[in-house]
Amino acid sequence: MQNNTAPTMPRNRLAAMILCLGMFSPALLPTGAWAKELPNKPTLADVIKASSAADWRPLDADNTVYLELASGRVVIELAPAFAPDHVDNVKALAREGYFDGLFILRSQDNYVVQWGDPDKRHAIKTAKKTVALEMSRPYDGKFEFARLPDADGYAPQVGFANGFPAARDPKTHRAWLAHCYGMVGAGRGNAADSGVGTELYVVIGQSPRHLDRNVVLLGRVMSGMELLSTLQRGTGALGFYEKPEQYVPIKAMRVAADVPSAERSDLEVMRTDTATFKNVVEAQRNRGGEWFKEQAGYVNLCNVPIVVRARKQ
Amino acid sequence: MQNNTAPTMPRNRLAAMILCLGMFSPALLPTGAWAKELPNKPTLADVIKASSAADWRPLDADNTVYLELASGRVVIELAPAFAPDHVDNVKALAREGYFDGLFILRSQDNYVVQWGDPDKRHAIKTAKKTVALEMSRPYDGKFEFARLPDADGYAPQVGFANGFPAARDPKTHRAWLAHCYGMVGAGRGNAADSGVGTELYVVIGQSPRHLDRNVVLLGRVMSGMELLSTLQRGTGALGFYEKPEQYVPIKAMRVAADVPSAERSDLEVMRTDTATFKNVVEAQRNRGGEWFKEQAGYVNLCNVPIVVRARKQ
Repeated sequence: MQNNTAPTMPRNRLAAMILCLGMFSPALLPTGAWAKELPNKPTLADVIKASSAADWRPLDADNTVYLELASGRVVIELAPAFAPDHVDNVKALAREGYFDGLFILRSQDNYVVQWGDPDKRHAIKTAKKTVALEMSRPYDGKFEFARLPDADGYAPQVGFANGFPAARDPKTHRAWLAHCYGMVGAGRGNAADSGVGTELYVVIGQSPRHLDRNVVLLGRVMSGMELLSTLQRGTGALGFYEKPEQYVPIKAMRVAADVPSAERSDLEVMRTDTATFKNVVEAQRNRGGEWFKEQAGYVNLCNVPIVVRARKQ
Repeated sequence: MQNNTAPTMPRNRLAAMILCLGMFSPALLPTGAWAKELPNKPTLADVIKASSAADWRPLDADNTVYLELASGRVVIELAPAFAPDHVDNVKALAREGYFDGLFILRSQDNYVVQWGDPDKRHAIKTAKKTVALEMSRPYDGKFEFARLPDADGYAPQVGFANGFPAARDPKTHRAWLAHCYGMVGAGRGNAADSGVGTELYVVIGQSPRHLDRNVVLLGRVMSGMELLSTLQRGTGALGFYEKPEQYVPIKAMRVAADVPSAERSDLEVMRTDTATFKNVVEAQRNRGGEWFKEQAGYVNLCNVPIVVRARKQ
């Protein structure tokens, strides 16, 4: 990681992503000691540094899409294990050029950014106009689910499924993705099955977990999140932009596998079914380093970092 | 509220703030019915509409500061009940002009925005150079604490204290503010008591509750949050801006009581010790309206909206 200079994610930006350890204030000198000293334990940075190649997997190019904006590229890995029909349809829409020339229409502070077709200028060609309801999926016990021992208010059990935050209910034997920061879903109208992937939204604030199982989640932003989270907020109801000139144009949305190798974002994500990831979780649950004075002893599902980085060349 | 046209918060922006109800997609027509219908119950908008004047209080001008940026005003109400010495010092710093001409230095995605004095150009004049440690305060039973019945992973009990999200521990008889979206704290160095209010940060992402009792929280952004949350992210470690020309200048930071009435932001915040606020919480815990299909049956402390609006004239 130290030698990583791949252009898709500069090392300094990567550092900013993973080193969310505290508010170091360089202008302030220590002026006193704290009453107690916490044990010296590995920080998140320590755990990542100690990880091996086997702790990471490359993004799945067949199930990754690039949202190309004038400001740069947003990389979204899709989750076919949870929403296979929606994922297929988003890929079909991308491949038929449905999103190209459309717009980001909505930016609601502490909630979501959303894109789509405000005035139905694009007809669906080859993609489906209705897809299966995929609010949750059967949990058969074979499906990867690295359970987080920490309790959760919104679901009986929470954990991670191949790099995605998820939840499950042992009574109903159902599992579903969770609305954490950076998760991507299919906006819909009042009918539960009216979201077919033509309107996509990304969570940009406090996790709106009350949306779980109310909207189909289908992926997670793996890079370029700041291109969405810093968009000017819309001043209309629900954060929609009020004037068409405020819309943010989408240059293109493409499936990574269709993009020449040299133009792809070569990223890898930390596996979530490993001992190393358990160490990541623990480093977040009980912080080490000199800065922290109180350990939380708990971590919320949406506060666990699922680390993404550029692959070593 | 319908007639509210005060310039500090246009009605459409207010609507965007309070109507976080769902992802209505106007381009999509309903194409099917959901298997079950949820009971028709009040939405957040309904509860706010039914509120009375007694459910609101004006911001406390003696304990409100304005952070004036070229892009507009950020209104921060301070919390003297929790951090009296820090609040006093921030007000003293504002009154001596300490922040005027300084900069926002840091914008870390999904974490915090922070401002201060990067190269010690401003000396402290009348304000204190050391202040009491105020990570938590004694909870004496008389202090307002409207307890949220929903369980929390980070604290034995959580709730609201005069419009601020808070936590308490009945064993230690201590209470403290919680790191929810929009909360403002005093950045510090490695020494616990090294934050005196010269470096302030605001939470702009998923609530970093592991910071609770590790940094002194002293207030909450009541208006203008989007001016901070949309700032370009810093590419240095911890989201610090790497080049001085990226710094965002602070025109001034002033105590509201020192500002002529006509220039003040005339806001009111919903009281958190009322039956109406319990209805707000319930409307968030179990959503009504036509859009929702599954009720969460739970609400996280940091997902409860503490509504702010322009006062009726």
